[in-house]
Amino acid sequence: MQTVAADQRWMRLALALGARGAGTTWPNPFVGCVIVKNGIVLGRGWTQIGGRPHAEPIALAQAAQQAHGATAYVTLEPCAHHGQTPPCAEALIKAGIARVVVATTDPDPRVSGRGISMLRAAGVEVTTDICKSEADHQHAGFFKRIQENRPFVTLKLATTLDGKIATRTGDSQWITGPNSRKYVHLLRSTHDAVMVGRATSTADDPSLTVREFGAIKQPVRIVLDRQLQSSPTGNLGQTAQEIPVWMCHAQGAQTQGWAKTGAELIACASGPAGVDLGDALGKIAARGITRVFCEGGGTLAASLLRHGVVDQLITITAGVAIGAEGIGALGTMEVCALADAPRMKLVQSKSFGGDIISTWHPA
Amino acid sequence: MQTVAADQRWMRLALALGARGAGTTWPNPFVGCVIVKNGIVLGRGWTQIGGRPHAEPIALAQAAQQAHGATAYVTLEPCAHHGQTPPCAEALIKAGIARVVVATTDPDPRVSGRGISMLRAAGVEVTTDICKSEADHQHAGFFKRIQENRPFVTLKLATTLDGKIATRTGDSQWITGPNSRKYVHLLRSTHDAVMVGRATSTADDPSLTVREFGAIKQPVRIVLDRQLQSSPTGNLGQTAQEIPVWMCHAQGAQTQGWAKTGAELIACASGPAGVDLGDALGKIAARGITRVFCEGGGTLAASLLRHGVVDQLITITAGVAIGAEGIGALGTMEVCALADAPRMKLVQSKSFGGDIISTWHPA
Repeated sequence: MQTVAADQRWMRLALALGARGAGTTWPNPFVGCVIVKNGIVLGRGWTQIGGRPHAEPIALAQAAQQAHGATAYVTLEPCAHHGQTPPCAEALIKAGIARVVVATTDPDPRVSGRGISMLRAAGVEVTTDICKSEADHQHAGFFKRIQENRPFVTLKLATTLDGKIATRTGDSQWITGPNSRKYVHLLRSTHDAVMVGRATSTADDPSLTVREFGAIKQPVRIVLDRQLQSSPTGNLGQTAQEIPVWMCHAQGAQTQGWAKTGAELIACASGPAGVDLGDALGKIAARGITRVFCEGGGTLAASLLRHGVVDQLITITAGVAIGAEGIGALGTMEVCALADAPRMKLVQSKSFGGDIISTWHPA
Repeated sequence: MQTVAADQRWMRLALALGARGAGTTWPNPFVGCVIVKNGIVLGRGWTQIGGRPHAEPIALAQAAQQAHGATAYVTLEPCAHHGQTPPCAEALIKAGIARVVVATTDPDPRVSGRGISMLRAAGVEVTTDICKSEADHQHAGFFKRIQENRPFVTLKLATTLDGKIATRTGDSQWITGPNSRKYVHLLRSTHDAVMVGRATSTADDPSLTVREFGAIKQPVRIVLDRQLQSSPTGNLGQTAQEIPVWMCHAQGAQTQGWAKTGAELIACASGPAGVDLGDALGKIAARGITRVFCEGGGTLAASLLRHGVVDQLITITAGVAIGAEGIGALGTMEVCALADAPRMKLVQSKSFGGDIISTWHPA
């Protein structure tokens, strides 16, 4: 007999395997699969770069004949539709899997419930909702893309003790320590895209690439730049052929300079304050992006918070004080009453290399 | 045979007992004493409110006849001079204590080394420097008062995620959660004095009392107020008869209003930016204060940091964002290059009731 505790243990392994794909499988979700019989792991799989092969066929191939009568733990309902790969539910049935444990169901209307129905119709025992909340969090980007037409947004604020990101002369290297800066590369690598505003693109001329952890798939670099004022001859423009750059701009912006670089030009609704966030995020999601990592600057960060689209906030706080003349982490937010200020709930906080790294979710 | 590990264990108990006196024993240090024989605690003492009785006679009285041949653990070198109480070194000798373990020596020129010499001359075995760094930290306020003519300064910054302490309209209730606000009362209670600047005194009309933990000795309330602009009819002025209020002001300020309240008026050197910090802290130390808890506002906090007199910084960070128009935790600091900004070293960081509370020491 499988107990819930045992199911949860195997599912956590599947979730950990699935997490290996974070940032690299879009437009598909990053799924993990473990095939177990008599307490022995026969196969382990996770969605591969670009979104296929899926986790299940990889794990099934490892298990081979032994999959017969085994239990498959899958972090997301197996697909049931014939897309670019045959449906995973079918593959599990063909392999003779006796029981499938599913963490959470797929909100994709082509899949939702059908994978489970297909399995049950074939006589496979199906258990659902094992480690559902962890799985829902892991798949939040994919779910938001399908259900809300926007990606999961992680915002990073790396600041001094007093919430500054640079001195008044713009000196910002380095506020946080080397370990924190390395951690930022890990965060970039687990998101499909890295996003900055025009001011940061202009002031820092960033490359926004992952330069640690042996990354083999770089995130898309996205700039929200209403008038396309960022220089197309900067780091982003120069590397746009090798690593995608998406420029979200207003209708009517001068696109010639950027068009030559190979960057993708995405015309968005906009107002005097800049590109319309909802429209830009929608167009980014429509291109398949499930997870966006926003690194500022202050205007974009404040805008994301004000619009309530920050799904996860990472604060990195360093032990240095700059004072009132410094440049703040957030632009104007038009908050008068504290009750109207966006609240976040602390999920985790750790000392890390002399800095404090904390994770916050919407309250 | 006593091992160093055993000595450290008993000394930590003595330090914990001594800590009970924090904030209540000034101008004296808060000392702890444990008397042990054959692994059994015979007496426990700590400096009482107002600074006497000292820890040693209390512990000796508990041990009574059994003190003979026992070991006394004392967190600070026992006093050797005849002050308002007979010297503790003499009391330990008279009681027949065989061995005294001392965490750290007293920098008071009337005591330093003499307590140990007196004990050794009487044939008592003396071991020193057990848990010395913990003891030096615990006695830092007393040591600074004696050696540097200023108190130990703890600065608190309770802010939003983006380093703000209020919205632009002044709304600040409440940024941090109830547990953090209660913790601030604990911090007040373990300091001899609570200090604020003029702007905070005027804007908040604070009472600066300890209203938790059954406090039986309230800290002195200190305001740095060059021109004595704080209203003498506010909370501080109205209660100055019961709980001391010290107003540090410039020479020539109008003192009539405050003189009537019973507040102590301390004339200090000053410049256009306000009361001279070094002079004010010196005059506060000269009146016996060993530990000051500074609760702001931003101008005073920035000034303390800029002058390098923050010995301990407590940051309390809440999960709320106010944006650029909010009021910052620190005033101007005239920092251009990041290398010139004051650095602090992270000592401890904890999640606490939804906020993050961190302790920093000078780097």
